[in-house]
Amino acid sequence: MIDRLHQILGDKGLITDPQEMRPFLTDWRDRRQGNAVCVALPASVKEVSLTMKVAAEEGQPVFPLGGNTGLCYGAVPESPSPKDKPGIVISLQRMKQIREIDVAANIATVDAGVILAELHEKAKTHKRQFPLYLGSEGSAQIGGLISTNAGGTGVVKYGPMRDLVCGIEVVLADGRILSDLEGLKKNNTGYDLKHLFIGAEGTLGIVTGAALRLHPENTNDAHAWVSVDSPESAVRLFTEFQEKCGAYVEAFELLSGTEIDAVVRHIDRVHVPFDTVPEWSLMIELTSNDSSVDLNGVFEEILGENLENGSVLDAFIATNSQQAEQIWHVRHSVTEANKLEGMGMVHDVAVRVSKVPAFIAKAKEVTAEKFPMATPLLVNHLGDGNVHYILMFPHDYWKSLSDPDAVTHDVQTCVHDIAASFGGTFSAEHGVGRKLTDELKRLADPLRYELMKSVKQTFDPENRMNPGVLFE
Amino acid sequence: MIDRLHQILGDKGLITDPQEMRPFLTDWRDRRQGNAVCVALPASVKEVSLTMKVAAEEGQPVFPLGGNTGLCYGAVPESPSPKDKPGIVISLQRMKQIREIDVAANIATVDAGVILAELHEKAKTHKRQFPLYLGSEGSAQIGGLISTNAGGTGVVKYGPMRDLVCGIEVVLADGRILSDLEGLKKNNTGYDLKHLFIGAEGTLGIVTGAALRLHPENTNDAHAWVSVDSPESAVRLFTEFQEKCGAYVEAFELLSGTEIDAVVRHIDRVHVPFDTVPEWSLMIELTSNDSSVDLNGVFEEILGENLENGSVLDAFIATNSQQAEQIWHVRHSVTEANKLEGMGMVHDVAVRVSKVPAFIAKAKEVTAEKFPMATPLLVNHLGDGNVHYILMFPHDYWKSLSDPDAVTHDVQTCVHDIAASFGGTFSAEHGVGRKLTDELKRLADPLRYELMKSVKQTFDPENRMNPGVLFE
Repeated sequence: MIDRLHQILGDKGLITDPQEMRPFLTDWRDRRQGNAVCVALPASVKEVSLTMKVAAEEGQPVFPLGGNTGLCYGAVPESPSPKDKPGIVISLQRMKQIREIDVAANIATVDAGVILAELHEKAKTHKRQFPLYLGSEGSAQIGGLISTNAGGTGVVKYGPMRDLVCGIEVVLADGRILSDLEGLKKNNTGYDLKHLFIGAEGTLGIVTGAALRLHPENTNDAHAWVSVDSPESAVRLFTEFQEKCGAYVEAFELLSGTEIDAVVRHIDRVHVPFDTVPEWSLMIELTSNDSSVDLNGVFEEILGENLENGSVLDAFIATNSQQAEQIWHVRHSVTEANKLEGMGMVHDVAVRVSKVPAFIAKAKEVTAEKFPMATPLLVNHLGDGNVHYILMFPHDYWKSLSDPDAVTHDVQTCVHDIAASFGGTFSAEHGVGRKLTDELKRLADPLRYELMKSVKQTFDPENRMNPGVLFE
Repeated sequence: MIDRLHQILGDKGLITDPQEMRPFLTDWRDRRQGNAVCVALPASVKEVSLTMKVAAEEGQPVFPLGGNTGLCYGAVPESPSPKDKPGIVISLQRMKQIREIDVAANIATVDAGVILAELHEKAKTHKRQFPLYLGSEGSAQIGGLISTNAGGTGVVKYGPMRDLVCGIEVVLADGRILSDLEGLKKNNTGYDLKHLFIGAEGTLGIVTGAALRLHPENTNDAHAWVSVDSPESAVRLFTEFQEKCGAYVEAFELLSGTEIDAVVRHIDRVHVPFDTVPEWSLMIELTSNDSSVDLNGVFEEILGENLENGSVLDAFIATNSQQAEQIWHVRHSVTEANKLEGMGMVHDVAVRVSKVPAFIAKAKEVTAEKFPMATPLLVNHLGDGNVHYILMFPHDYWKSLSDPDAVTHDVQTCVHDIAASFGGTFSAEHGVGRKLTDELKRLADPLRYELMKSVKQTFDPENRMNPGVLFE
């Protein structure tokens, strides 16, 4: 098989040396390592197709690898059973061409190996933006972002990756190429198959290219940090912003005082523009591509009224870019601060925006009783109903535990169950991967789970596409 | 079987009298009539489920019927083979409850039998809009609109039905109920099955309920009629509007002078605000929910510059609602005018916005040569790349034809082929139904067609769900 692959891929396209293969087999946090016969680095869709045909003939599992930035081990090549063949890792890092920017149609056609930050730059030269914004944009690849339906901070305005993909090119398990990169805004000729591959985590095929929706660049922005007394008040204010200027809301983040406290304790150059740290902080960004709109004026009007009627306790509107950066510096320092603060159990749940306050109240009540040593820290993409509910245990306490894995499991089950009781999900944006397959089986509607398995069976009857992901 | 259905549905829920059944078996233009054992009118999801279980046990085909406003005979109960059983029509007209309006989450949860106009009204009472706007909104039902992925005039700003559905409830062929009506903005836990049912034209299951995305009401609008010299200039202007105020563009329609002439000839109270009918007319609507934005000012700035540099020949900006109505009266009179004008062969093709000018040029060239008796009339949702290319034959000429069906077929094939040569689709918003199954087979990518059949087989192995639709 190696010889056949070598003929297809050439010297540059195939790695078999265990030492060289290592970075392709290990997750980026170095927590889990997989195994493979070889790493294939095809340079074209054709080469992916031929590689897949060889894999099919040899009965080898295939493990697609994007930028390796996932949090759920979806890209670690681990066959579910020791009897399985070790398989082929396919990385598209050599397929990194931005094939076309169509300004009138607002579409970028790209190879799956393009790195998100490169697309951001390219779009900018055409006065466009590709509005998917997340921490790993310097290494995350388009193919992986599609396969995991990536989210990030722009979802409230632009939607997740699913809403930004208007066409895809996929190589199926048998090597055939399914391609529609026209990205038509209207096309009613049967089933829309592309949505099956978006968020499928590589279990149905390998995304090799995409037509992506661009948006006009924003020429105008405004930023505010607002103190409110409760999540209820935060949701009320979100609703008001939606009504009065919904099209401007680019970020609407809700942080607990406990989280801000942690940032203040551990991070440099943190400036809180209030006398005391608010119990609940909203960080809001408004944007527009109409440069004539007075976005600070919009802030002043809505926040002014709410200060008067008491719904808002205090508000700080940035008057220059430095002040705006000060606000977002706090938000972006959360991960670093939490690492220093203690052992944080992060959850990525989502409920409807309207149910966020009730979910938070219930989660705080239950976890206070069950895990009295832990402090809840909350970082919420409120506009999406996405709650990162973090239970923070002191380092010393955590080290004293005889079975920390059991506690981790208990905490996770507890928080996921509460989200489920509000109709919510246990994985809003991080996916399932190999980490949460048990939770998917436990919490998914059994009929949906069965139908998902039927779809998997239809597209990948031999279960060779990223086996071990999604399903146990 | 009738007895069993009667027990489930009661007197009000079952029609077996041929005379009473007739309106349920005939398309609204009275062009095609089907056949059925009975018409079931379930009053709840449970009743739909039980009805489907009976149908499954009896091996009866099932024909879902919405508001019966389709143009492709997707709702006419015709079994593809005379050997098939005649089947059961299921209408959800008794399921018309708006179950919930969640203002903070911007979600309406509705029964599939709710009529679009009723949802419009209800949303308004909550300062929200459900931005799907089309001619048949007084009778079209939500279930049918989802099953056909309906489009209309708001697509350029809000997307088609697919973009407005955040959760669905479906009864499968075997009667089981697949339901997720939470409508979470973020949920990455495996395959997104709802997109398979959207636009499936009832071939995979019966949509009984939906969670739909509401938008804030617009408090601000502006309207203009612009004269340009070519489709190229129209696309350039569209691109400029996208860049400078993309979030405001609610409608961007391009009409040929030949189409306006037909309206002027046949319709009353038509006012053209220019000395002569423009060769190409753009009708543009801008909207915003920020009442402080000066939308007429935006028009003046962009159109003013383009008048100066010659890209725009003339422009009329409405200064009051009466003038706005005058503009849209022309647009909305197209169908009526064309009926009087002659025998119009309407096509519903779409290409990328950037390819619209080349498509139009090619189509005009080819059809002028092949069908010299016909005049091309163009009505385009330019912002969506959706071209209603209408070939208008004089009534007298048409009546003189010995085989008009053959000409109809030739015209259709010709226009669809040209669209395909530009990567376009033969059905942008009208769907496939029973009318265009040949065209789907002829023009679809064979691999996609095969995969669609596999999906159909997975969800409806006995081919009992709306047989004859999509597939031959």
